Amino acid sequence: MTQHSHQTAPTQFVEANGVRFAYRRFGKAAEVPLVFNMHFMGTMDHWDPAVTDGFAKEREVILFDNAGVSRSSGDVPGNFTEMGANAIAFIKALGLNRVDVLGFSIGGLVAQEITLQAPDLVRRLVLVGTGPRSGESMDTGTPEGREIFGATYRHPDDLWLRVHFTPSEFSQAAGRKFLKRFRFRGIDRDPEVTEKAALAQRTAIAKWGAKREHAWDYLKGIKQPTLVVNGSNDVVIYPINSYILQQNLPNAQLIIYPDSAHGSLYQYPGLFVRHVSMFLSAADPWAP
Amino acid sequence: MTQHSHQTAPTQFVEANGVRFAYRRFGKAAEVPLVFNMHFMGTMDHWDPAVTDGFAKEREVILFDNAGVSRSSGDVPGNFTEMGANAIAFIKALGLNRVDVLGFSIGGLVAQEITLQAPDLVRRLVLVGTGPRSGESMDTGTPEGREIFGATYRHPDDLWLRVHFTPSEFSQAAGRKFLKRFRFRGIDRDPEVTEKAALAQRTAIAKWGAKREHAWDYLKGIKQPTLVVNGSNDVVIYPINSYILQQNLPNAQLIIYPDSAHGSLYQYPGLFVRHVSMFLSAADPWAP
Repeated sequence: MTQHSHQTAPTQFVEANGVRFAYRRFGKAAEVPLVFNMHFMGTMDHWDPAVTDGFAKEREVILFDNAGVSRSSGDVPGNFTEMGANAIAFIKALGLNRVDVLGFSIGGLVAQEITLQAPDLVRRLVLVGTGPRSGESMDTGTPEGREIFGATYRHPDDLWLRVHFTPSEFSQAAGRKFLKRFRFRGIDRDPEVTEKAALAQRTAIAKWGAKREHAWDYLKGIKQPTLVVNGSNDVVIYPINSYILQQNLPNAQLIIYPDSAHGSLYQYPGLFVRHVSMFLSAADPWAP
Repeated sequence: MTQHSHQTAPTQFVEANGVRFAYRRFGKAAEVPLVFNMHFMGTMDHWDPAVTDGFAKEREVILFDNAGVSRSSGDVPGNFTEMGANAIAFIKALGLNRVDVLGFSIGGLVAQEITLQAPDLVRRLVLVGTGPRSGESMDTGTPEGREIFGATYRHPDDLWLRVHFTPSEFSQAAGRKFLKRFRFRGIDRDPEVTEKAALAQRTAIAKWGAKREHAWDYLKGIKQPTLVVNGSNDVVIYPINSYILQQNLPNAQLIIYPDSAHGSLYQYPGLFVRHVSMFLSAADPWAP
């Protein structure tokens, strides 16, 4: 039975870890829900309905604002360890003890933390447009990323055209379609993140990206089957970081899509949902 | 209508370019056949029936021995330009003017040459366990590859266990299954390649791999939608070469499979056939 959709799911609240978490839950009731972790400066309304509703046909989808983001109370911690702990508290507060976790951009860093801190909670992991600790240009951010996030835009949404899509005509056309889709939900929308929240996220990113010795050893601790996805021309988190994730995770598959940037999942929502669904639905993720 | 299979397809012959080419053709009659290009020292019988018959359910599959290999007459040229020209002559001699091309290992170098020399002949391209001109360690071969091909084995087939699979228990178990499958065709098998043919292939590999300036610019000339596939731990042609292919081809998707080596397509035949079939079957390969 499918209940609600990206457009109609009411925003609900649950208390955990001293935080009142805002979340939405929709899709076909299934054994293992898929929990989405959002990117820098993003709220539940920055997800693409073509992606979330695509998954919702076959499984339950859970969107949420982590602590201090948009309608969730509390503060954004200055590190991903605590963001991961908050996410775990939220998931457990829903009464769930087994979930699939999808993380996009810094949501992928939260997803890694969830998996490391609560390995029994996570069945399978999907990491999109993200990277490892001490990944390439992840401490300071890339020069392109700093320019994109620092610029001013005629319409605030135009920022996402540059973050998520390449300058090519093909990619920009896909971007304009995405911008329409992500504004389609007309009521009960999340307020934008505050400057304070964004600054705390930046602090956390700098700590995550800081250079360390044997930086990637920790990835050996993520035993879950993992699907790593990126765009060929992601200038916010370089795609070599996805390659590094795949090479260092013990059980990961990598997919890189053509002529695409940070938002490859929004550029190819049909292909992305199909690839990820194959990975999540099969009893053995590598033998569907 | 499906005709024949990997096991039953008779070996046929066609003359072109002064060469008598041995080939087999089977599967469901469809508009665009899939032409397979084989690895170093390989014959038609080194393909995995789980892969070829997997594709044959939906499309026509064509295996062949290139010039000088096994039952095909002529000599193996000492460069991939001529191997590509021979492959084109073979395909045209079958009366075909539009094909999909799959190349595995040095077959991927032939596949690139086919596409560059006869762009109108090729609809889509699949490159497995291969690399670009001047790819990393492609001139001399990798140290691991030299050791593996230089060693002696109790049974000659055991060479392929080391070439195509990682040392892990999981991968070796998949390898033993593959060795059974590829010996299952009992009659009308190809003779092994001669030492002379293998030496000419080595000469061609050294030329292909030689360092040059702007080595990867030529990839911009391959406009066809391309799917690049590799194993995470390919020690014969390092997977970074697949990443380089994806990053430099104008319209390519990359897939890297976990805990797998040169023969990732033989380790995950079901997943490989499904991923490639999605890519080949859709009207738009990136929006199935």
